[in-house]
Amino acid sequence: MLDADGVARDLSALTADIDGVFLAGGGIRRVREAHEAGTLPVLADPPARVGAPVARPGKVVCIGLNYRAHAAESGAEPPAEPVVFMKASDTVVGPDDDVRIPRNSVKTDYEVELAVVIGRQARYLDRPEDAAACIAGYAISNDVSEREFQLERGGQWDKGKSCETFNPLGPWLVPASDVAVPALRLRSWVNGEARQDEVAGDMIFDVPHLIWYLSQFMVLHPGDVVNTGTPAGVAMGLPGQPYLRAGDVVELSIDGLGRQRQRFV
Amino acid sequence: MLDADGVARDLSALTADIDGVFLAGGGIRRVREAHEAGTLPVLADPPARVGAPVARPGKVVCIGLNYRAHAAESGAEPPAEPVVFMKASDTVVGPDDDVRIPRNSVKTDYEVELAVVIGRQARYLDRPEDAAACIAGYAISNDVSEREFQLERGGQWDKGKSCETFNPLGPWLVPASDVAVPALRLRSWVNGEARQDEVAGDMIFDVPHLIWYLSQFMVLHPGDVVNTGTPAGVAMGLPGQPYLRAGDVVELSIDGLGRQRQRFV
Repeated sequence: MLDADGVARDLSALTADIDGVFLAGGGIRRVREAHEAGTLPVLADPPARVGAPVARPGKVVCIGLNYRAHAAESGAEPPAEPVVFMKASDTVVGPDDDVRIPRNSVKTDYEVELAVVIGRQARYLDRPEDAAACIAGYAISNDVSEREFQLERGGQWDKGKSCETFNPLGPWLVPASDVAVPALRLRSWVNGEARQDEVAGDMIFDVPHLIWYLSQFMVLHPGDVVNTGTPAGVAMGLPGQPYLRAGDVVELSIDGLGRQRQRFV
Repeated sequence: MLDADGVARDLSALTADIDGVFLAGGGIRRVREAHEAGTLPVLADPPARVGAPVARPGKVVCIGLNYRAHAAESGAEPPAEPVVFMKASDTVVGPDDDVRIPRNSVKTDYEVELAVVIGRQARYLDRPEDAAACIAGYAISNDVSEREFQLERGGQWDKGKSCETFNPLGPWLVPASDVAVPALRLRSWVNGEARQDEVAGDMIFDVPHLIWYLSQFMVLHPGDVVNTGTPAGVAMGLPGQPYLRAGDVVELSIDGLGRQRQRFV
């Protein structure tokens, strides 16, 4: 846990990992209480690597075309209801891990997204207002995509979404109570050049609507992750389509949720 | 384990569950050895319920339109390369468990499929011939689908594939060495009326090709499941489109892999 002063504190006395069981069992509250009681020791050494802030998500559900300008740059109309696809959850890696460009890929692309981490089962929610109780917190997600695999190889998008290492997540899972979604500014850079910059309030379907909507079609379980869509400015939508090459460095940030930095290899 | 005489034997001394770790660690070989050594006790009581024969698959990857007659009844051309989509792995239930028709569903459909269970990581396989070493075994899968959610609600198919309880699996995981795929006859019935009946050899892309193909786009891990597509005869393709209603009983069988029976509720 990072405390308000940015000091890393050790949770190993509370849990072996941050996962669905921990979140469903009031884990975030227990961390707060332990910290307020002064019982969380300072981490002696900073970690050599930062992993994803949720271990082994059961599923990663993704929303497509959820910002108007991105739908337009993708050549699509704004959807009448949320576009849903799945990403293999074994693609989740740490926020600064290398991302592997797949063999034979020429159209690997970045997508900064606000990730919702589920903390309580969401099943047939009555109203969008009921979604908040099911959300543990938020994180940055890079919904890395291979556009040729996704769009030009027949069938469904999933083929270009589930390649190895294609979902850097984190660095932080920020409790929902500490996040005001609409104002969050999502940004990405490639080799230092700004690419995406839009606020979460521009989503066509906002977070409560998405969680309510998904709960009509599937059960969301604690530890599941929902990627809520990407703003305009992906390589596919830019002049010359500057897809990622080995050696490129992609950085992503969302206000208050930290920053990611990946080398593409 | 069911032995050659159909006697159920207890594996609890060997493993707590049949999962990816067990399969990757030579679990099937260890079961065989223990059985040959006569050390597997007979189960005193038959289980009250048969669960899925693989615990917590990491992902369920599905192949669409992989039989010509089913592609035709779906109004689609036979695909030039495999059509791939994902199903939430938390949809996996036992072979005889009730299947829940989703709220507001009017087009819930059955799909008998041959499921491949992965036993060793498959990543960028060189040739289809390399697939066999990655396959632990086979099972029956019902790739239950909600056609309106899948096809008429915008976007990708996944929305109609990941509803609660939508993937009965089993009853058995039959080791690959005991299965000759092409001759397997896949059949389904609704309330005793025959619906699907075709051999696995009719697949457009056979199992080795599918596993090789998938391994170019994603990493298949031990315990992952691949649903290899359904034959013709689903409700969507029949005159009058007799979709499933509460109270319907669906039965599925594949030669040598056992039989499923679900009540739709």
